Amino acid sequence: MTSIINDVFLKTLLRERTPYTPVWIMRQAGRYLPEYRKTRKQAGSFLDLCKNKDFATEVTMQPLERYPNLDAAILFSDILTVPDAMGLGLYFEEGEGPKFKNPLQDEKAVQKLDIPDVEEKLSYVFNAVKSIKEALKNRVPLIGFSGSPWTLATYMVEGKGRTDFLKIKQMLYSRPDLINHILKINTETVTKYLACQIDAGADVVMIFDSWGGALAHSEYESHSLNYMKVIISNLNLLGYQDVPKIIFTKGGGQWIEAQANSGADALGVDWQTDLGPARKLVNNKVALQGNLDPAILLSNPKSIEAAVKRVLDDYGYGEGHIFNLGHGITQFTPPENLQALLETVRNYSAKYHQE
Amino acid sequence: MTSIINDVFLKTLLRERTPYTPVWIMRQAGRYLPEYRKTRKQAGSFLDLCKNKDFATEVTMQPLERYPNLDAAILFSDILTVPDAMGLGLYFEEGEGPKFKNPLQDEKAVQKLDIPDVEEKLSYVFNAVKSIKEALKNRVPLIGFSGSPWTLATYMVEGKGRTDFLKIKQMLYSRPDLINHILKINTETVTKYLACQIDAGADVVMIFDSWGGALAHSEYESHSLNYMKVIISNLNLLGYQDVPKIIFTKGGGQWIEAQANSGADALGVDWQTDLGPARKLVNNKVALQGNLDPAILLSNPKSIEAAVKRVLDDYGYGEGHIFNLGHGITQFTPPENLQALLETVRNYSAKYHQE
Repeated sequence: MTSIINDVFLKTLLRERTPYTPVWIMRQAGRYLPEYRKTRKQAGSFLDLCKNKDFATEVTMQPLERYPNLDAAILFSDILTVPDAMGLGLYFEEGEGPKFKNPLQDEKAVQKLDIPDVEEKLSYVFNAVKSIKEALKNRVPLIGFSGSPWTLATYMVEGKGRTDFLKIKQMLYSRPDLINHILKINTETVTKYLACQIDAGADVVMIFDSWGGALAHSEYESHSLNYMKVIISNLNLLGYQDVPKIIFTKGGGQWIEAQANSGADALGVDWQTDLGPARKLVNNKVALQGNLDPAILLSNPKSIEAAVKRVLDDYGYGEGHIFNLGHGITQFTPPENLQALLETVRNYSAKYHQE
Repeated sequence: MTSIINDVFLKTLLRERTPYTPVWIMRQAGRYLPEYRKTRKQAGSFLDLCKNKDFATEVTMQPLERYPNLDAAILFSDILTVPDAMGLGLYFEEGEGPKFKNPLQDEKAVQKLDIPDVEEKLSYVFNAVKSIKEALKNRVPLIGFSGSPWTLATYMVEGKGRTDFLKIKQMLYSRPDLINHILKINTETVTKYLACQIDAGADVVMIFDSWGGALAHSEYESHSLNYMKVIISNLNLLGYQDVPKIIFTKGGGQWIEAQANSGADALGVDWQTDLGPARKLVNNKVALQGNLDPAILLSNPKSIEAAVKRVLDDYGYGEGHIFNLGHGITQFTPPENLQALLETVRNYSAKYHQE
């Protein structure tokens, strides 16, 4: 099916037999790596890094060069490139996280929102995908990604990252028509965005629903999961049914059964959830990806080894587990601690994959 | 058992029959009330408000005077009075939330930590309880409260509120001995603190585990729930077995079965959890308290009415449900919207309590 040399990650997404548990790390190309910080300095801002295909390729490749045990690469980019392409004016304030110049805070702004010319406005992303694929030489698969419609809407309405979600929830509960308009636009845009990433070479796509966990149980399916489902089924209709799809609702462990029926091939899971019971709940319908607490990487190799083993033990025997953190790696991680994690995954997981 | 005139809340905590579902609101004495803002201005700072028994009584009584349908009063105070009594130096920066002058950020600071003279250092809290009890004239029960050992430890190590929990988790994973020392001190202190509140007149006690949900599933019981269990069993040994006890781990919906075995009479539940399945999981061992998303109160009476009915429907027929929000009421709530919530609970819930 593929010419990828190390296809352990791809096989696991399809719950096929592999010799060990594959691993990649959310935000593996990031500030914890000195080589990343060097490139970032050269590039200028974080956005300059995303928008220049050579820099994006360089930082995507850095963790793979340092850690031979990584089983996947992930496109270096940001979920907020999409609302930026819609004209919301993304910028970053030092120590403050992402912000938007033109958030959607009244009806007029929402009504004006439209699907952008994805191919043109986000061409820098697809150029980065092509360039990374060349650099990878099929060593491991490349993951493309997007934010979920709900998560993007959260940033678009709140106008910033760290938030109490009161603006978007006030809109959700008072003017569901406006929220649904935003979510529909986002859904169509994300579908195109992921299709173009696949066309450019992405082997797998992942939808990050970072803020789905802020929703009430009565609103999660209707306002987040269902829109992710539409993206998956639209991608399938467009002919991308063989490209594995991962969804990850951070803080969404209570809704894992519904997620397993989304059409996704794998579900991201955070550290609140025990992989053993979760696996029973999803009943072999999907692979599970996760779920070590990233903070453990601030400790020491011995504690890390024990914690990694516990996660592998939680999942247990058989296929369908992709090892990862439950959230992005923190910038304060000593790089040698990630080495300890990766070695433990590779060495200890083999016993769970024997006949 | 009690001379309280409206004992619907107390009866529900014991899962006894009542004519309707009782309701109180986390942070019901708070900034959304103009009368609160007036008293707060008179008092000076938030801490001045907590430390003066007359002001604390005044603001505790304000929501009860405005809303005849509230079935409980809750002591006006703050969970951080406890670490303040331990000498950590609590202060509030405008718009920044609570901070500590002397956080526990090295081994020496942790080793120096000791159980404070609760009766003396926190006498202002017990005086407030006595004063509020007099003002209540037994109209409704009074809830006393404390933060959980883990939640207090989080503030004590991080030194502030809004946080990524990296400092305490680094300590948890690298130096569990230090964390356990803090948790033990907190557990003994909280036990004394709640016992003194009961002696002063509190009819019910609640433990707020606001940050238990930040823990990995493998750490929650050992580092948060088990310490709450110890507090409950110590209170029982001290002779307070007839005082109902509520625990609330925000974001802890995945661990509700373990919570039901804690010895608590009721569990707080946030809006991520569906009360129907939760009720089955706890199997009539405990009452459930919650769980409307506070953001709904920013909408309009019609949407609020529908959402309140859905929560009551989720729980369904029979006893054991205390209506509340899933978190504190926000300061932006129009007071008339809370009125709509309270009227709907009272009127609509009666049908679930018939023979």
